[in-house]
Amino acid sequence: MLGRLRRLAILAEGRFTAHDAKTAVGILRYRPGEVAAVLDSTRAGSTAFDCVGTGGVTPVVATLGDAAALGADSLMIGVAPQGGRLPAAWRASVRGALERGWDVLSGMHEPLALDPEFAAAARAHGGNILDVRRPPARTPIASRRAATVDALVVLTVGSDCNVGKMTSSLELVAALRARGVRVAFVATGQTGIFCADQGVAVDAVPADFVAGFAEEMVLAAAAAADVVIVEGQGSLHHPAYSGVTLGLLHGSCPGAMVLCHEAGRESVRRPGGERDPGDPAIPPLAELVRVHEQAASWVHPARVIGVALDTHAMTPAAAREATGRATRETGLPACDTVRDGAGVLADAIEALARERRDHASHA
Amino acid sequence: MLGRLRRLAILAEGRFTAHDAKTAVGILRYRPGEVAAVLDSTRAGSTAFDCVGTGGVTPVVATLGDAAALGADSLMIGVAPQGGRLPAAWRASVRGALERGWDVLSGMHEPLALDPEFAAAARAHGGNILDVRRPPARTPIASRRAATVDALVVLTVGSDCNVGKMTSSLELVAALRARGVRVAFVATGQTGIFCADQGVAVDAVPADFVAGFAEEMVLAAAAAADVVIVEGQGSLHHPAYSGVTLGLLHGSCPGAMVLCHEAGRESVRRPGGERDPGDPAIPPLAELVRVHEQAASWVHPARVIGVALDTHAMTPAAAREATGRATRETGLPACDTVRDGAGVLADAIEALARERRDHASHA
Repeated sequence: MLGRLRRLAILAEGRFTAHDAKTAVGILRYRPGEVAAVLDSTRAGSTAFDCVGTGGVTPVVATLGDAAALGADSLMIGVAPQGGRLPAAWRASVRGALERGWDVLSGMHEPLALDPEFAAAARAHGGNILDVRRPPARTPIASRRAATVDALVVLTVGSDCNVGKMTSSLELVAALRARGVRVAFVATGQTGIFCADQGVAVDAVPADFVAGFAEEMVLAAAAAADVVIVEGQGSLHHPAYSGVTLGLLHGSCPGAMVLCHEAGRESVRRPGGERDPGDPAIPPLAELVRVHEQAASWVHPARVIGVALDTHAMTPAAAREATGRATRETGLPACDTVRDGAGVLADAIEALARERRDHASHA
Repeated sequence: MLGRLRRLAILAEGRFTAHDAKTAVGILRYRPGEVAAVLDSTRAGSTAFDCVGTGGVTPVVATLGDAAALGADSLMIGVAPQGGRLPAAWRASVRGALERGWDVLSGMHEPLALDPEFAAAARAHGGNILDVRRPPARTPIASRRAATVDALVVLTVGSDCNVGKMTSSLELVAALRARGVRVAFVATGQTGIFCADQGVAVDAVPADFVAGFAEEMVLAAAAAADVVIVEGQGSLHHPAYSGVTLGLLHGSCPGAMVLCHEAGRESVRRPGGERDPGDPAIPPLAELVRVHEQAASWVHPARVIGVALDTHAMTPAAAREATGRATRETGLPACDTVRDGAGVLADAIEALARERRDHASHA
């Protein structure tokens, strides 16, 4: 990961749950071979699967020393708090890792490498601090160039944050690749970047350049692919992050969108995740489809071609009922890409990509 | 301006036109008493009014020495290029101003204070570099708190960049203030910040915090005002900047919007301003009204209450015809706030503010 094969200790102290430790869960699901241990002293002795439903028997341990005994050589910050600040109580772990000469991998908004104490510890012991959310110095301005690529560009969009946009994107990439489709993945958030070994965290770049970075990445990815899957961010209905969502939509100029939603979630979550009766309601799926197609059309038209539901908290029967209802409400294929596999969505994407190719070859 | 009364030399070398020198024009219109001269050797000897239709007899001069002879003590970068980089040919002027001990005021994305050569010149000669676009270090996350203020919040929105959002905002502030309304202005771009002596350039902050800074500024402004006018940015239909626009809309949670448009402009301009047949078309005004009300409703409902047209390139008769047509197409009051004054829009805002107050006092 990011330059070399690693043995990661993933820091998730006190927060190693499916809801809080989004980054940890993503890495455990998509780069399991590089995880030595998860650090959460409140859950030490259990396994990753016990805590978050993925990651198998990866041990949860209490200390850096425990992780080192399992061969860890790098520390990854395993949470993605709103606001992107390192929890104060975690400073000692970061410093401790650097003092062992480990690399530290972080997706915080605040670059850890700019922290004088951390920078000094890295220098003294030979480790590196890799801040993947730190924006590149370039200042790209989008101008609908992503609409001109031959590849089919597919963007995941969502009803809220944390409803499976990254997961569905990676499941789609895997499903299409398994079918022999030339598919590329554009990572736009910290966890996606760790999984893909490249990308730009578009929520951290100066707002003027969100669309420009999206455009740049799509153009690069499309050069050697027939399908480009772009990891979505935020939600058009999110009070804090809707701008990132729209910039990404208008910069990447998808031809198709996959709508992601957590089945049963009724309102947009606030910072911290607590609920409040005043939270903005999530509209019905059919309206979400309409809204995304409208917003896309302001710059470049795109259709929603399927629904990816997160049903992880449901029984199999309830999940089946939820995906059936999503299809009835929208007229679109729907599935939970983790529970069911991404097959029906991959079918829709393959059909559309084929249609585009046929259309292009007849033109 | 920004800490003390200034005598500005505004740098607009080779670009002192109404189209290119947006920042210069804004300062000449709203802070004319602080402008000593405009620097453009290609137009030296003319007046500001000759070149850009505002600023009266403010002289256009060729050199820093000429400006110094007119009492200049600060240099302001007078253009706002897409991408926000200082034109390379202007480095000598910036260095020259600093070597005279002047302050330099800049709204470039790239902070001039981080340029080693400029920083050294400022240190050596005692001047300051004021980079107003540089984002504050805070990381505010919006959560619809701006929707809870008692004041009526009015956001200017637009069909494109450079269609008069800042100008209409400042004209509305002046018109309402002249009527005795307690009105506050929230500056969100470099020129607005120069005019208002405060504000945050939301297009330069990390994308996650655009809405948060808008929210923060609205809450502060609403504490001592009955009407808050928020300077809009970009356009929902702009391929590069739509994300900034939506973040500002959802962070500031306006109760009302004023739609700004340059009469006769038919497509969104690309970086650099050149035209291309493939440029996204600007939809009809009535559709723009609908689109903005829809986009607002995703987080907090708002109505468009009037249209501000930029008719500066038109004859008086054509301008009258354009505002009449805008009213027929939208059913809303319309005017060119510079040519006609902002009266009809101020009427609509006053009426709505009174309605809110009455509603609140009966509630």
